[in-house]
This record gives sequence, C-alpha cells and structure tokens, in this order.
Amino acid sequence: MTKTSSGNFFEDFRIGQTIRHATPRTVTTGDVAIYNGLFGARFAVQSSDAFAKAIGYPRSPIDDLLVFHIVFGKTVPDISLNAVANLGYANCRFLAPVYPGDTLNAVSEVIGLKENSSRKTGIVFVRSVGYRSDGARVLEYVRWVMVRKRDENAPVSGEHVPRLPTALEPKVLGDACPPIDTSAYDNGLAGSAHRFADYSAGEKIDHSDGITVEEAEHMIATRLYQNTARIHFNQFIEGQGRFGRRLIYGGHVISLARALSFNGLANAFHVAAINGGRHVAPLFAGNTVFAWSEILAKAELPQRSDLGALRVRTIATRDKPCGDFPLKTGDADDPAVILDLDYWVLIPR
Amino acid sequence: MTKTSSGNFFEDFRIGQTIRHATPRTVTTGDVAIYNGLFGARFAVQSSDAFAKAIGYPRSPIDDLLVFHIVFGKTVPDISLNAVANLGYANCRFLAPVYPGDTLNAVSEVIGLKENSSRKTGIVFVRSVGYRSDGARVLEYVRWVMVRKRDENAPVSGEHVPRLPTALEPKVLGDACPPIDTSAYDNGLAGSAHRFADYSAGEKIDHSDGITVEEAEHMIATRLYQNTARIHFNQFIEGQGRFGRRLIYGGHVISLARALSFNGLANAFHVAAINGGRHVAPLFAGNTVFAWSEILAKAELPQRSDLGALRVRTIATRDKPCGDFPLKTGDADDPAVILDLDYWVLIPR
Amino acid sequence: MTKTSSGNFFEDFRIGQTIRHATPRTVTTGDVAIYNGLFGARFAVQSSDAFAKAIGYPRSPIDDLLVFHIVFGKTVPDISLNAVANLGYANCRFLAPVYPGDTLNAVSEVIGLKENSSRKTGIVFVRSVGYRSDGARVLEYVRWVMVRKRDENAPVSGEHVPRLPTALEPKVLGDACPPIDTSAYDNGLAGSAHRFADYSAGEKIDHSDGITVEEAEHMIATRLYQNTARIHFNQFIEGQGRFGRRLIYGGHVISLARALSFNGLANAFHVAAINGGRHVAPLFAGNTVFAWSEILAKAELPQRSDLGALRVRTIATRDKPCGDFPLKTGDADDPAVILDLDYWVLIPR
Repeated sequence: MTKTSSGNFFEDFRIGQTIRHATPRTVTTGDVAIYNGLFGARFAVQSSDAFAKAIGYPRSPIDDLLVFHIVFGKTVPDISLNAVANLGYANCRFLAPVYPGDTLNAVSEVIGLKENSSRKTGIVFVRSVGYRSDGARVLEYVRWVMVRKRDENAPVSGEHVPRLPTALEPKVLGDACPPIDTSAYDNGLAGSAHRFADYSAGEKIDHSDGITVEEAEHMIATRLYQNTARIHFNQFIEGQGRFGRRLIYGGHVISLARALSFNGLANAFHVAAINGGRHVAPLFAGNTVFAWSEILAKAELPQRSDLGALRVRTIATRDKPCGDFPLKTGDADDPAVILDLDYWVLIPR
Repeated sequence: MTKTSSGNFFEDFRIGQTIRHATPRTVTTGDVAIYNGLFGARFAVQSSDAFAKAIGYPRSPIDDLLVFHIVFGKTVPDISLNAVANLGYANCRFLAPVYPGDTLNAVSEVIGLKENSSRKTGIVFVRSVGYRSDGARVLEYVRWVMVRKRDENAPVSGEHVPRLPTALEPKVLGDACPPIDTSAYDNGLAGSAHRFADYSAGEKIDHSDGITVEEAEHMIATRLYQNTARIHFNQFIEGQGRFGRRLIYGGHVISLARALSFNGLANAFHVAAINGGRHVAPLFAGNTVFAWSEILAKAELPQRSDLGALRVRTIATRDKPCGDFPLKTGDADDPAVILDLDYWVLIPR
Repeated sequence: MTKTSSGNFFEDFRIGQTIRHATPRTVTTGDVAIYNGLFGARFAVQSSDAFAKAIGYPRSPIDDLLVFHIVFGKTVPDISLNAVANLGYANCRFLAPVYPGDTLNAVSEVIGLKENSSRKTGIVFVRSVGYRSDGARVLEYVRWVMVRKRDENAPVSGEHVPRLPTALEPKVLGDACPPIDTSAYDNGLAGSAHRFADYSAGEKIDHSDGITVEEAEHMIATRLYQNTARIHFNQFIEGQGRFGRRLIYGGHVISLARALSFNGLANAFHVAAINGGRHVAPLFAGNTVFAWSEILAKAELPQRSDLGALRVRTIATRDKPCGDFPLKTGDADDPAVILDLDYWVLIPR
C-alpha cells in the first residue's frame, strides 16, 4: 500500500532471485571532475585524453573505482538499505572500459543466504553485474552484507554459503584494457620510471601521504553514486546510533587508498580485479587516511606482451602513518587499520 | 561614482520596471554532476541519456529545479541583494526543456510594491522569466521579497499588490515535456511501479529519509547558481547578525525535498509548475532535512494521453522525521517545519 | 630503491635544470563547474558560450586562474613538496586560450638558487611553462619558494638570484585573447557599464562582499588541480605543526579575490599577466575573505583597438571588510591582509 520503499529485509531474499536495479546513470566528464576533486587521482591514463589516445584508448576511460561505486550504488536500495554491516567483496572483475557518455545499469543475483544465530540478522551474498546500456558487461563482483530481519520469527527461505575464490586467476584479467602501445607510454608524464619488471613479490611500499576527510566530501561522493544507505547522510538519526556519527561509505576509503597508492604505483593505471576486501573498522569525518601496499604476486597475462599484473594488498589506516606497515591480523593487530584490500592492477611491461 | 554595486533598495523599484539581469550561463554536464553530488537525485529521465531517449527526449534534460536556481540566481544582484526575507513564490511554470550546452538568461518585471508600516522595508513583487539564448522562454515565476530601504524617509513610487492565482490550471502544464512513449518507460529502471492511476487525492507519503546539510555543500550549490545573496556566504558578518550563522538558500531546501520525494514519487519525473511556496523557518548547516508529501489533486492534461499531473504539497522539516505528517499551520503548528511547497508534477499514465 | 617519491630537497636542484612534470590533464566542463561552485565567478565571457561566441571566441575559455592552478599543481611534486613557504610569483603571462577538451602539461627550469644562512633551507627560483598537448605555450611564470634541505651539511650546486621585472610591459599582453568585437559586447549581460575609459589610475574599489572558506572546499579545489602539497590535506600531521591546522593553498585566495573583484571590475574579463604576488599571511578554514583593488595604471595595447589593460593591485584580507583599504606595508600595516597581488587585466574599450 505504501509507495515508500523501506528496502528488503533478510527474510525477503530468495536464493536464485534476480533483482534489476534502478536508476540508470549516464557517466560524464562532470562526474570525473568531482571524483578528481574528491580524491586527487593522478594516474595519467584517466587524467589525460591525449595520454590515453597515445597508448591505444579512444580517450580517457572512467576511473575503475568510479564505475564500481556507481554500480554498487544502484544495488543499495534493494540489497543493503537495512544492512548492519557490509562484510566483504570477492571475485570482482572489470570487463569492459567505460567512457564519458556511457550509461550504466546493474542487476544482482542472490547467491547465498545464512541467518545469524540471534535470528535478528542474516548474511546475504549477491553477485552484482554492471552493464552499459548497449548490453556489454562492464563489471561483476560478489559482496556479502549483514541485513536485519523485519521480523525475528520470520522463516528464511533456504540457506547456502557460496564458495568464493581467494583470488582471480591472471588469465581472466585485462578485458577492460585495450592493447597498449608501451613504447608510447611516457614514464615522465606518468610520473614514474617503475614498470612491471621493477616490482618484486614481497615488496612493501609506504604511500606516505595522508588525506583528512570532511563530512561534505564523503556525502557528495556517495550521493554522486546515488548510493542511498542512510547511515552516511543522516546525522539526526546516526547521532542517536551506535557511533553517534555518520559512517563513511567504505568505498570512499578504497578510493582514497587507491589515490594515495599513486605514490609508489604510478604506472599501475588499471584496477583489473578485486580479489577480496574487508572494511575492518569504520572511518569518520575528521580522520586522516594513510595507506601502504605489499606486492603479493606478479603474473604475466596470456597473449599480452604489453602489460603485466601485480597482485597488491593495500592497507589503509585512520590517523596513523604507515611507515611500520601496520596490519589488523595476528600479532601485529593494529586498531588504526580500516581497510584490507587484495586486488590486481595492470602495469606496462 | 562607485563601480561597486550595492544592489537596489526598496525605493529604487518602480512598478512596470523591466530589469535585464547579468550573467548569462551555459549549463553543462558538469553542473549536472555537482547537482547530483549535492542532492543525490535519482529520477531516471534526468539521470540517464539512454532512458530519456527511449521515451522521447533527445537526451537527459537538466533538472527543472537546477534551471530554476540558475534563473533565480541571476535575479539576486538586482532584486534581493538587500532583502530581509524571501517571502514566497507563485505562478511558476516550466515552459521548455533545457539541455546541456544551452545558455540561460533572465529578465524581471516589477509587478507590485508595498511599503511596510515601519517605512524601513517594503515588499517587491517581480515576475522573472528565464530565456535560452535562442530566445525561447524556459521558465517564468513570480516571487515577492521584503527589501530594505536605503533611506526611511524616501518616498516610494507607487503601491500595488498583484493578484496571484492560488494554483496554475492543468491546461497550461506540460510545455517543457515532449510527448512521452509510455510503453518505453521502464518502471523497473525508474524504481517504481506506481503511475498516475495509482495515486489518489488526499494520499500522504512520508519520504522517510533524511539528509544533513554542511556549510560547504550549500555554499557550493548557491555559488554554482551565481546567487550572490550575502547571507549565505559571509560568516564574519552573519556571525554578528540575527542568527549568528549563515542562512541556507531556500532553494537548497526545495532541491533536498524534491530529491527525498523520489522515495514515493519516483515516476513523477518532471516538475511542471510551482503553485506557491513559503520558507516558513530557516535552515542551518548541521540540520537534517526530512520531507513528506500530500497529493492535493490529480488532473488529466488536454490532448495528452501520455502523462497526468499530480498536484503535490511537500513539507520539509529540520531535525524531525515526518511520520506524523507535521504542518506549520493551525492546531498542528510544528516549529520543525521549514518549507511548505505546492507544485504540479507530471507522471506517466 | 624506494618507489615512493619524497620530492626534491634544496640540494637536489641545479641551475639550468629542466624538469618535465607529471601528470597531463585534460580540462573539461566538469572542472569549470566545480570551479564555479567553489568561487562563484560571474565574468560573462567564461560563463556563457553564447556571450563568448558573440564577441569572437569559439566558445567560453577556461578561467585563466584555473589554468594557472592546474599548471602550478603539476609542478608541486617536483618543486615544492618540501617547501616551507611559497614566497612569490613574477613575470606570469597567459599566452594562449585554453578550452574544454584541451590537455595541459608543464615543464620547469631552475633559474635561481640561494641557500639561507641557517643552511637548513634555501630559495629555489623556477620558470614554469604550461603547454597544450599540441605544443602551444599557454602560460609561463616564475615563482620562488623556500625549500628544506635533506641534509644541512650538503653542498649546494651554485647560487644565482635572477633579476625579475617588476611588471610586464603592456606590449607583451593579450596573446591569450582573440580580437574582440566590442560592439557585440553586451554591458547589460556582463553586469557593468564601466569599460576601459571609465577607470582611472589611483582609483580604489572596495569589492564589498566576503566569502567564508570551509575545509572541504579548499581541499576539493586543490585536489582538482592535482596539487599534492601535504600541508593542505593532512590534519593528522598539520595538527602537530606550526599552525595546528591545514594551511589553505595560496592560489585559493587568489581565485576568491578575483571572484570578489567582479563587483567593481565586471568587464575586466581576462587576466593577461601577473606582475607579482605575495601571500603575506596564511588563510585557514572558517576565515572570511574580503578584497579591495587599486588601479595602478592604464595602458593601451599596440595594434589593439578592442581592449585596454588595467594594472590592478588587489589586496585580500581575512575576517576584515576592506572599506578602509588596508595594506600590509608601512604605516598602514594591517595583520588582516593575506594577499598582495599585482596583475594586468584586459577590458573592452
């Protein structure tokens, strides 16, 4: 009867259910400019049409993470409006480049459900796919999120916890990156002489800089993605909640960490896949974000002599420089850590 | 002698006077992106070129309220730089769609003047018209505003209080909306199955969500419209003034309420007219805005089988959820109410 | 060995050294929109494609100061990452218009070095040039900046203090401005009837308005320019530093003062050159910026009957209106003054 959506609760989901999300969104150079203003990204391919054209793109592609956030944002009203926590990502792959003028849509499939023992919440696993309006798939990923039940006593429709790969195979990477003319790739303009051969597995890089986040910034970003999760926007309600504050969208941390990683990974211009990611602590306005990375592995790509892949683990912290490479795990458990992200980037050979 | 404009005072206006405003403004996808980042609008027609084309637009039109704010902004240096209060709007009609690349101008005519008994201020009524640079009228509206006198003893040139309609007739609505192919209008992508037939006069909708406003946000918005009203920007002066704070542009509240109204009115994609509106209390940074709406009336449009019109009254509050449908009038006088807006929206049949 | 750049220190520079900067940057209407949202500029030529075309431009050019900031930003990672203070600018000239879609690069030459007596710091003088990707020079300027030494005992490679002109000659002005059809220049739309002939040397103009700056605003601006100077972004570190706060990029003050100067100089639509500029005190978020200007001189331009040049000195203050024309020099030493800028603007005859 009501025309206002209050989102789905845990008992509303069914395994195998397919959800076609609103709202389609044309991405423009205006979105790119705001993204640049908020994160200060400096990767040459996404910054300069001239640079992108020289190496084989028709023009600068949209930043991979901006595509991710826009697709993710569409899923929120249907999947996570009643979420308690966004638990993780896996199996995220970028499948086609997106350019200004392209329109993005999103569809999700429920691939797992698990009620928590409290019966107050449950975990929903969805595979979400982003499409261009011409039907091309641009992105897919799995996420799992803890969602409230409307009614503790409501039965759930079935349980299944999907098996997810720890990491994507290198052979599936690179579909979103056209062949690159590496001889035309200008290290000087790109800001670094370090290419694929210069990185080693096990290498650690402190990205050194820090960025303080303001309320206006994370809200502008998150609204730009049409992400409607209430916890980011409503101080009146959140002021009475568990943190007393608005919680910053986890994807904001990912974009900050990626922008910071330019200092050390300047030529790793394309995020090809996200193997997994966890937001291990919240970020609030006024905090300063720092980051460091470890090269977990290197891989050649089949039939591509232009680029290699680096598997990178990037850790972000709040209010703590990363010179000592803090972690949230084991003996080195550091409460300043907020993000632990495992992903593949492509870098010229 | 001075080259600095200090704006017009009440005694400077004459009934029948026509004022051609500076500054012409080309609207771009950059403006659209900032508007999206600030308000998080999700109406599919304005968000997706592909969606807009499918139903009959050449591309996504500029949000009606962004057009309103840009036209309004042009009038401020001439009409309301010395305003005490913006009292109301009436008879506002959108006359032609605006697309990225179009340039907007504005002209106002003084249609009424009434000095207040204190002789310190008076009310100026203006009819303002927004034009594209090709001469097409895109918007017209009346507003009245209380303006200071430079000199209490100055004579005023004449008095007249114009009669204004309570509401626009349905037959004059729709000029800014091309014929819509309703069969191509995709409810799923648009985010709601509710069309014209599903709404009833008297129906009330709590839009449920709330958005907290930051100083940076409302100033970025208001500068984007080239609105120079000092009260929004200058904490040094306003800190010594009646509120001790910068006052947020009333149009910011209208845009927030409109964005919130998506949750319940997702298919009402076009604001065709504003019958009347009053800012009944001020909004300040740090407040959280909520909104609810009542369907005041429904109307068919002559010779249009594609769309119907809903007359909507939207109430916005600060720091108060709207589940009990608060009002600022009569027995239900609620001090949390900040906006009372009466307007026509078009929605597919 | 490290892949993270920590920038150059004083002893790393050599006279005659040429540094080609990363990252190339395509400027878009998205950047223009953010710039408008942050500064509220109202100059008609930059605001309206239709106005710009009418007088002889192919479309609205990018605001001169936005071009300056983007070029300046590129130089930061190489020149001033370890700066203590940005001391001054001179000999800055705009050489070609920049339009949306153009890509900007930057190259700097070290033209002077002078170690300070403490041996902890030294002054680096660079001439920086901004290029379009087609090779055209769009901007050149000299700046000098105090840079830390990595090692107090490190020898310096040579000393030289370049002689810099006090002001540019009028005959070198105007390359970035096409011939203007002054009969098509519409004073009404531009917002002022005052043209070249109406200004007099010695005339002082209080620009009257004030704008309060927020943390989110200056960080968005400065990141948009890809300026990585740490002092603007990192509250965790700056909170422990000499001011206890983030310092606002000096260029932000210049853009605010320029936007404020519209009220009194509305037809001075093009900044042709900056003769010199000093940031005489810092600006912090929460401060309100005011400005006033003096016309230092007037000049005709050889072979140009369309435009004249005004040499303007603009003073900006924090938290102090400028009705009494405050200065930072001599008897009138006012601690509220933050900027003292000497520049040439072009204005229709």
